[in-house]
Amino acid sequence: MSQSYPNIVLRLPDWLDAVLPPVERVYASREERMGLVINLARQNIQRGTGGPFAAAVFDLDSGKLLAPGVNLVVDGHCSVAHAELVALMLAQQLAGSHDLGGSSHPPCELVTTTEPCAMCLGALPWAGIISLVCGARDEDARAIGFDEGDKPADWPATLQQRGIAVHRDVCALQARAVLQQYRDRGGPIYNGRSTN
Amino acid sequence: MSQSYPNIVLRLPDWLDAVLPPVERVYASREERMGLVINLARQNIQRGTGGPFAAAVFDLDSGKLLAPGVNLVVDGHCSVAHAELVALMLAQQLAGSHDLGGSSHPPCELVTTTEPCAMCLGALPWAGIISLVCGARDEDARAIGFDEGDKPADWPATLQQRGIAVHRDVCALQARAVLQQYRDRGGPIYNGRSTN
Repeated sequence: MSQSYPNIVLRLPDWLDAVLPPVERVYASREERMGLVINLARQNIQRGTGGPFAAAVFDLDSGKLLAPGVNLVVDGHCSVAHAELVALMLAQQLAGSHDLGGSSHPPCELVTTTEPCAMCLGALPWAGIISLVCGARDEDARAIGFDEGDKPADWPATLQQRGIAVHRDVCALQARAVLQQYRDRGGPIYNGRSTN
Repeated sequence: MSQSYPNIVLRLPDWLDAVLPPVERVYASREERMGLVINLARQNIQRGTGGPFAAAVFDLDSGKLLAPGVNLVVDGHCSVAHAELVALMLAQQLAGSHDLGGSSHPPCELVTTTEPCAMCLGALPWAGIISLVCGARDEDARAIGFDEGDKPADWPATLQQRGIAVHRDVCALQARAVLQQYRDRGGPIYNGRSTN
């Protein structure tokens, strides 16, 4: 008997369209961009659709939102579906290209509520973004029990050497508060098996 | 105006079902498992559907194929769609769980034609596999122009510390030959922008 394999499908939460501002909205500053993704992380917790993480790809110059992402690991049955990768995959699908750094595409910035884990860090150079904006530190995620994986000690330098600017601690207090809120609600911590 | 975001969809190549042996087939040894994925990588080149990389998730004990994967980066408009992550995402979707190491799931082995890049390496501990089998070395991929990213110097040890056994150089000559074949055909090398 032969097997027919289905498409791999990741479905964004139903509430996402309703909570996003109109598509024309301009997010002029890093703080405004971070404000949006922190709200998405909060919504993801409150509506019970995933972990306390959100991210988004923005047009670096115009400040327009190109693609949002939230953590879909548990509900999406996909350990790869961290918020950063969801946002990058959606942005690339909408662009019709695996490369957000192509000459026909506006320069892109990825904004994430918490610094990337080892997987997401490794994914960034392949995606074509030229700027990364982070809220909470990776140690804040570790502090509530998430495993961030084995990252190079000076990972911001490794990105900068690859042409990706790194901006840390943007709205850090608010970003950290989302992680605390998740822990206080007793949300699941879904790490690798050997660390459970 | 509000925007409605589509699902993220990764479509496996149309030829895949036709070239796979019947689903009952048992791949008893690591070499047999590697033989299958090397064939998938060859097909991916010959049919022009992606990069020279394939992978698959196997039931470690029974030797049955659970999910195949091939590199879909360019055609799939997705820099995340390395063969390893395609196979893991498909296996998890079929299992209905983000965790292939859960107690209700058979222990899983990921077999890949070339050692994982930094992104795929970072993804492995989150996926729940307990064994990794590699064909060509990462330096073989680098030798034909692919960037493997910033990996820990002793990355097999980092996986083993997390409970993932690592088997390298399985059918290494045949696995390397696929990379050479891709280079000889002038296939695209789609690295991060800063390295092009």
